[in-house]
Amino acid sequence: MTMDTLQTIDTPAAVVEQSRMRQNIARMQQRMDALGVRFRPHVKTTKCIEVAKAQQAAGARGITVSTLKEAEQFFAAGFSDILYAVGMAPHRLPHALELRRRGCALGIITDGIESARAIADFGRANGEAFDVLIEVDTDGHRSGIRPEEDRLLEVARVLHDGGMRLGGVMTHAGSSYDFDTPQALRAVAEQERAGCVRAAQRLRDAGLPCPVVSVGSTPTALMAQTLDGVTEVRAGVYVFFDLVMRNVGVCSEEDIALSVLTTVIGHQPEKGWAILDAGWMAMSRDRGTQKQKQDFGFGQACDLNGRVLDGYVLGGANQEHGILSRQGEPDAGIAARFPIGTRLRILPNHACATGAQFPQYQALSEDGTLQPWGRFHGW
Amino acid sequence: MTMDTLQTIDTPAAVVEQSRMRQNIARMQQRMDALGVRFRPHVKTTKCIEVAKAQQAAGARGITVSTLKEAEQFFAAGFSDILYAVGMAPHRLPHALELRRRGCALGIITDGIESARAIADFGRANGEAFDVLIEVDTDGHRSGIRPEEDRLLEVARVLHDGGMRLGGVMTHAGSSYDFDTPQALRAVAEQERAGCVRAAQRLRDAGLPCPVVSVGSTPTALMAQTLDGVTEVRAGVYVFFDLVMRNVGVCSEEDIALSVLTTVIGHQPEKGWAILDAGWMAMSRDRGTQKQKQDFGFGQACDLNGRVLDGYVLGGANQEHGILSRQGEPDAGIAARFPIGTRLRILPNHACATGAQFPQYQALSEDGTLQPWGRFHGW
Repeated sequence: MTMDTLQTIDTPAAVVEQSRMRQNIARMQQRMDALGVRFRPHVKTTKCIEVAKAQQAAGARGITVSTLKEAEQFFAAGFSDILYAVGMAPHRLPHALELRRRGCALGIITDGIESARAIADFGRANGEAFDVLIEVDTDGHRSGIRPEEDRLLEVARVLHDGGMRLGGVMTHAGSSYDFDTPQALRAVAEQERAGCVRAAQRLRDAGLPCPVVSVGSTPTALMAQTLDGVTEVRAGVYVFFDLVMRNVGVCSEEDIALSVLTTVIGHQPEKGWAILDAGWMAMSRDRGTQKQKQDFGFGQACDLNGRVLDGYVLGGANQEHGILSRQGEPDAGIAARFPIGTRLRILPNHACATGAQFPQYQALSEDGTLQPWGRFHGW
Repeated sequence: MTMDTLQTIDTPAAVVEQSRMRQNIARMQQRMDALGVRFRPHVKTTKCIEVAKAQQAAGARGITVSTLKEAEQFFAAGFSDILYAVGMAPHRLPHALELRRRGCALGIITDGIESARAIADFGRANGEAFDVLIEVDTDGHRSGIRPEEDRLLEVARVLHDGGMRLGGVMTHAGSSYDFDTPQALRAVAEQERAGCVRAAQRLRDAGLPCPVVSVGSTPTALMAQTLDGVTEVRAGVYVFFDLVMRNVGVCSEEDIALSVLTTVIGHQPEKGWAILDAGWMAMSRDRGTQKQKQDFGFGQACDLNGRVLDGYVLGGANQEHGILSRQGEPDAGIAARFPIGTRLRILPNHACATGAQFPQYQALSEDGTLQPWGRFHGW
């Protein structure tokens, strides 16, 4: 069987440049090793066994998932140390129990009395001591209990007194995506660290166990100056990076390992448009760079070698059509520059969203061949 | 086997209310019948055999697709009259030829000299007279040749003289989504009709065949006052409708047949937030109502019966978390109103984008049972 290449595979395709991916993995793992913490990558970004194996091979220990389907699929592929990092819904407890009974070391999280009671009641009724982390809110962006809230100790007691294994505390500084200077990112990282460590301290002061102190987001993991008191870091998008992370300031375009391979299928020369076969179905509807310091439309165009074509972005997108144009002055010569059949690669705003549009990645090796890497879809 | 219901199925799930879908199908088909045109639904919205069969049963003739994968899948399911309504890329001609040789009456489109030549050259070299429609641009929003351009006749001659079957002309008034008054929508519909008919007239005046005059978008199909000279209409999203179409003014919330079933998994009572297990992975990143007259965030909340919960929208979304809040004044009693485990249904901004996030729909019958309807993913 002949291997596909960027010239032969059908478009659109989600291309993963393996050399960039390995550099990104090595960069994060080296930082985590230097900071003396365990690293547990979030596999929601890729939902891909091959990528997670590369992360483990580089030194990661355990994985983080966002759905029980991911837990199922990764457990079936040999991963058994799994943190399900979305608040446990009571109706999913039987599924979590079943995974544990099959040998999966599944950790779960909660941030409320009601959920904690449901976990403890169900666990006791079934003779199972679930490993439960308490979700801490260090930046107000979503879920979690603020470190000083009474609720923190109440939830912990419900779990502990109910016979569950209190695994510790975890937080995610999702607000780090809103900043774009080293100073601000370091401050968010320190706020994330300090808040989570403070929550752990309160549990320990109350005589409760708190072995794990888990924090993380790609920007804070890469910008934290110290992680004193933290035992574990989680991050996801760093493995591919994307234009949002480029604008946040933690990578350059040259680090972005995911791109969408596309073909020029038409032109509107008077408007300076080339029409591509990558629309929003391929790029996703994510417009994450819209409010950032540089707006890349639906993505930044590169040539087949991954070199950025300065100023050429996907300015518009319909379901299966992308409109490539030059920012600023329209390119009157675009039809000659990118004739019908020209293949380009588009860097995505958000690697998690773009990857989800594809049933598989095409992993690009240094020898130019592509290898399909499956990824999961749905719940 | 017990059938699932809205109370038993795991969340998030993409629920299709069959009674609403059938009403939407009947409404469009009746209009098309009254206007005396053939109706060819665009199946890119649902990529679902069961939905397309319901459209055919109501009187639709043939289907429109946006990818050759859709053509493959629908042909395998017994649909043979298929228009591939995205400009033909030369590298896909062997695939199109193969489909035709297997008996699929596949029509293709082009809007450029270069592509037309590639089609004619490939067709002749392989003894195949492709059915080709010329794409006409009636509103400047994307691809196509303007009715008065010289290019129209040039492309037609390349195809006709090259031995291809000139099937006619087609256009899509995508700009209709930008309007929200009956007057403006009727004007766009008339512009779409008149431009496409004019292009057909120019071909016929030049002695070229033009049997098909195909137009369509959901808003123009529903608002056109006359379709004189048109032989065929295409539309997709009407089958489910969505909040964007509600803002355009061609449906109400009560017509929207697609919703995302979700579970309340947490609260931030001080902020008036309920946390749901439907984030952007379930809703898609589509924020199509952002610039319209009413912004629904990532979606409008309804109770399990599909009744709109006025003012409660998904104000924010992360990958697997949605933040439900009340517009205007925050709801201090939200935790009591929607306790942990409460199930809600969220109407989407854009049915095409939301559907694509799911491997299957859950079709809700009047008796309350759910039936899985598969849908395709990828290219």
